[in-house]
Amino acid sequence: MTASPLEVSALVDDVLFSFLGARAAVFSDAAPLFAEIERMARSGGKRLRPAFCIWGYRAGGGDDDGSVARVAASLELLHTFAIIHDDVMDRSPLRRGQASSYRELSATAGVRGDPERFGSSAAILVGDLAMALADELWWTASFPADRVADGASIYQAMRAEVIGGQYLDLLAGARGDATPEETRRISILKSGRYTVERPLQIGAALAGAGPDVRDALASFGAPLGEAFQIRDDLLGAFGDPGLTGKDAFADLREGKQTLLVALARKNASPEQRATLDRSLGDADLDEAGADAVRAVFIETGARDEVIDTVEGLVDAAHAAIETAALPPDAIAALRALADLVRAPRPLSGEGEKIAP
Amino acid sequence: MTASPLEVSALVDDVLFSFLGARAAVFSDAAPLFAEIERMARSGGKRLRPAFCIWGYRAGGGDDDGSVARVAASLELLHTFAIIHDDVMDRSPLRRGQASSYRELSATAGVRGDPERFGSSAAILVGDLAMALADELWWTASFPADRVADGASIYQAMRAEVIGGQYLDLLAGARGDATPEETRRISILKSGRYTVERPLQIGAALAGAGPDVRDALASFGAPLGEAFQIRDDLLGAFGDPGLTGKDAFADLREGKQTLLVALARKNASPEQRATLDRSLGDADLDEAGADAVRAVFIETGARDEVIDTVEGLVDAAHAAIETAALPPDAIAALRALADLVRAPRPLSGEGEKIAP
Repeated sequence: MTASPLEVSALVDDVLFSFLGARAAVFSDAAPLFAEIERMARSGGKRLRPAFCIWGYRAGGGDDDGSVARVAASLELLHTFAIIHDDVMDRSPLRRGQASSYRELSATAGVRGDPERFGSSAAILVGDLAMALADELWWTASFPADRVADGASIYQAMRAEVIGGQYLDLLAGARGDATPEETRRISILKSGRYTVERPLQIGAALAGAGPDVRDALASFGAPLGEAFQIRDDLLGAFGDPGLTGKDAFADLREGKQTLLVALARKNASPEQRATLDRSLGDADLDEAGADAVRAVFIETGARDEVIDTVEGLVDAAHAAIETAALPPDAIAALRALADLVRAPRPLSGEGEKIAP
Repeated sequence: MTASPLEVSALVDDVLFSFLGARAAVFSDAAPLFAEIERMARSGGKRLRPAFCIWGYRAGGGDDDGSVARVAASLELLHTFAIIHDDVMDRSPLRRGQASSYRELSATAGVRGDPERFGSSAAILVGDLAMALADELWWTASFPADRVADGASIYQAMRAEVIGGQYLDLLAGARGDATPEETRRISILKSGRYTVERPLQIGAALAGAGPDVRDALASFGAPLGEAFQIRDDLLGAFGDPGLTGKDAFADLREGKQTLLVALARKNASPEQRATLDRSLGDADLDEAGADAVRAVFIETGARDEVIDTVEGLVDAAHAAIETAALPPDAIAALRALADLVRAPRPLSGEGEKIAP
C-alpha cells in the first residue's frame, strides 16, 4: 500500500480493461459499443468510486486486492453508464474535455438523416451495455456467496438511488423551482451515496466488516458525498472549463437546480430574481448573461454559503473518522480522499474566497 | 399445468407486480419511475419470454414454479426496459395501442421547455431502472448457487446480444442498405435469441438440465426466434394497426431494414428501387406513399418469400422437437407456442396469402 489513496487506479484499470477486451471479443457484433465504453472509461476520471470501495474494504480488514478490484471496476463501469446517459439527457457535447458519447457517435460513418439523433440513440445503447457489463463483474466476483449477496444488495440500492436522484434532478431542472432542501436531497441521492457512502459500504460488506466499521464509514461517507456534489455544482457555475473539462455555461444553460441556485433565489431581491429567471435555462445564454448570474450568486451570499456548507460537510466527515477504530492506513487514505473531494479541481478566479 | 402455454402469465405477473410494489415502497423518491414501469408492464404483452423460460425449465424436469417465476418475471422486466428505450430511440408515440413511455412522461405536470425532450430523458431513466430491477430478481432467486450462476451467465450473454442487435438495427436503418443476410443476423440477435432461445436455455439451466435437453431446446428455439422477428417486421409493414397496437407507418417512416425490405431491394427494378429509396425513411410518408411501398413488397415477390421463410423456420422448430426426449406436456406447450409465433396477430387484408 502506497501513500496515495488513488494508487488503486492502476489495479482497477487492469481488471476493467482486460474484462472489457474479453467481452468485446465474444460479442463482436457490438464492437463499436465496446469501443465507445472503453474510450469513455479511458478519457479520464479519478476512479473515486473504486477508491472508496477499496478503502472501505481495507477499512473492514479486507486484504485480497485482486478480488475487490473486480467489484471496484464494476463501480467504474456503472459510472461510465451514468455519465453516458447523463450526457444524452443533458445534450452535453463535452465530457472530460473530450467529445461526449452521443457527440462522438454522431460522427459514425455512413449515417443518413440527423446525425445527432443517431448519436443519441447509439449512446443510449452504449450506456445500457455498460450497465449490463458492470453487473457481470459482480457475478464473477470471487468472494464467499453471503458477502457477495450482501455487497450486491447495497449495489442494487445504490443503482435505484442514483437513477431516482437523476430523475429528481431532471424534474427540478424542468420545473425550475427547487428549494435548498430539495437540491440537497438530490445531491445526496444522485451523487453523495453513489460516489462515496455506498462504495465504502460495498467494500466493507465484501470484507465481512461488523456494524462498528460500517457505522463509522457511513458517518464519514454521508457528509463527504454530499459535499462532493455541492462542490461539483459550484464548479459547474464558477469552474474554469479548461480544468473542469466541461462547458462553463452548461449547468446555467440547462437551468440545473443546485443548492447555489436555490439559495440565490431564496435570498434574491426582485431584480436579482428576475435575472435568475431570465437566464437560468436559457439555451442561448452568453458570457455577459452568465456573468450577471454569477454576480447574483455572489451578491446574494449564496456562493459563500455554499462554500461554507461544503467546508462544514468535509469537516464533519473528518470528525467522523477521527476516533474510529479503523486501520491507520485506511484512516489516512480516507482523510486524503476527503481533502481531494474538498478541492478536486481548481476554480477560476484566483484569490477569491472560492479557492479553499 | 393447464392446456394453454401462456397460463404462466398470471403467476409471473403476481411475482412481478408484488416485487415492483415492494421496491417502489423503499425507493419513494423514484415513485414516478416505478409507476411508469408498472404502467408499461401492465399495458399488454403476451409474456412470451417468461413462457419460454418456464417451459424450458419444465422441459428440463424442473417443478418449482414459484422459483422459476421469479426469474421469468425478470425477463419480462428486462423486456420492459428494452421496449421503453426502443421507443425513445425510434420516437414511437404508441406501444400496445397506448402512449409509449417517452410520450406519456412528456405530459408530466409543471415541466417548462420542450416536453418531448423531458419525456425522452425521463424514459431513459425509467428504462435504466427497469434493467437494474430485472437484475435484482436474479440475486434473490432461490435456486442452488451453481444453477443460478449458469442461468445468469446465459442472461448476461442475452443482454449483450440484444443490445448489440439493437445497435446493428439502428445502424442499418441509418445507412439504409442492409443485405438480406444482415437483416437476418439482426433478427437473430435483437429478437430471436432474446425472445425464444435464451429464455428456454435459462429455464433449462435453472432446472439443471443436461446437454440433450439443452440441444433440443436450442434447435427448436433458434429458428422459432428468428421467425418471430421476421413475422413481426412483416406485421410492421402489413399489419392492421388496430391489432398490432402500433402506427402502420412507423417501420416504413423509420426506414427500418428488415428482411422484407432487403429482399425487395434485391429483386427490384430500377423504378421499384426508386420508390423504395424515396419512401423508406421518409418521416412524412403518407398513406399513398406507404401503399406504393407495399405494392413493391408484393410485386417483387419479397412478401411471399418472407412468408415462406417464416413458415420454413416454424416448421424447422416443430421438427426439432418432434422426436426430442422431453416431457410430453412440455412438447405440447412448445408446439403451441410455436404456432402462436407463426400467427401472433391477424394481418390486415383477409383472404390474401399473408394470412397463414
